[in-house]
Amino acid sequence: MRISELSRASGVPVATIKYYLREGLLPRGETTSATQAVYSSAHLRRLRLIRALAEVGDVPLARIRGVLDAVDDEQIGPHLLLGTALYQLDSDAPAEEDDSADQARQTAERLLSGLGWRTYSGSPARGRLVRALATLDRLGLTIPPEVLSRYAELAHEAAERDLELLDAAAPREEIVERAIAITVLMEQTFTALHRMAQEDISAGRFGTGAPGC
Amino acid sequence: MRISELSRASGVPVATIKYYLREGLLPRGETTSATQAVYSSAHLRRLRLIRALAEVGDVPLARIRGVLDAVDDEQIGPHLLLGTALYQLDSDAPAEEDDSADQARQTAERLLSGLGWRTYSGSPARGRLVRALATLDRLGLTIPPEVLSRYAELAHEAAERDLELLDAAAPREEIVERAIAITVLMEQTFTALHRMAQEDISAGRFGTGAPGC
Repeated sequence: MRISELSRASGVPVATIKYYLREGLLPRGETTSATQAVYSSAHLRRLRLIRALAEVGDVPLARIRGVLDAVDDEQIGPHLLLGTALYQLDSDAPAEEDDSADQARQTAERLLSGLGWRTYSGSPARGRLVRALATLDRLGLTIPPEVLSRYAELAHEAAERDLELLDAAAPREEIVERAIAITVLMEQTFTALHRMAQEDISAGRFGTGAPGC
Repeated sequence: MRISELSRASGVPVATIKYYLREGLLPRGETTSATQAVYSSAHLRRLRLIRALAEVGDVPLARIRGVLDAVDDEQIGPHLLLGTALYQLDSDAPAEEDDSADQARQTAERLLSGLGWRTYSGSPARGRLVRALATLDRLGLTIPPEVLSRYAELAHEAAERDLELLDAAAPREEIVERAIAITVLMEQTFTALHRMAQEDISAGRFGTGAPGC
């Protein structure tokens, strides 16, 4: 298809598609003349993934590029690939160093070794967990270990449902593209439900009424 | 305490504190001379909350201001307040209008009316849910209703644990400050555990190994 058709099919303006092409987020189409190129369904799929990450997942373009570079690296097998891609989504902000950070690191270590999950100890998600726990501690909020364990169980069950949505028989690139979309979008789905559940419980505890909007 | 002591106690540089004062995120201290002001433990608490939202929650300053304005509005009771504050955290990006959006809106409506949660129909979290489901649909991923229902149950249980961390006997301003911190930080905690759980399950399905870092 032409770039105009790609735009219609994806709902992405031609100027934005050209920007993605220039930035190397989207591979060039096949050139058919000095001024024209044609694009395939792989381009359309890729374009939809970029939009999903950028618009709904709020993932910055530089990080999307990291994710897509991993997808395009044929050396990497599905699990490593998914890991590498997921790792690009998380910021690598170092934890502030203080007693709260030390304690949070120990809590995370105890929790994860108790769970026996196969996760890489340098995973940015672990860094995110440590930062969240340390910040809670600095605010005087200590999360009881049983709350954290239960949280981990709930998260694991959510993740099981997520990965059931994958068709393991699909081609490698498709599996990974879908896995990334599922990760980012099911996380958004969970966050939305989590906030609405908090609203529901808060209504039960403090009385109802629509917020003053 | 003086601004230098406030800086030491909070770990926030004096220049940043002055910036927050100028921007109205932090109330002025009590002036003791032409060049000096003193700050209370309420300032310290507020400063820690701002840092927690900005650094760990990735909440933009403009949105933090909206949250704090709601906290400072004494007209608003605890539930409305928490709702209003939470609503500031979510962006109000309108959903793209197409068949996927219509379908997502119906799915969300069916799910939420089935659950009977007390949530405001104009809640930005509901908008977030609709956007996520519509984007999944555009990528050819339809989430089965039973997966969504189970997700909602998991989210509700997580939210119950969150609100148990609140001390309902504390003063109104403190309850709300803590509730906001818990919302944002337990969400980060859950997201981190969710991603590690996905890594664990992916390792089981596709074989292990640390991502190529």
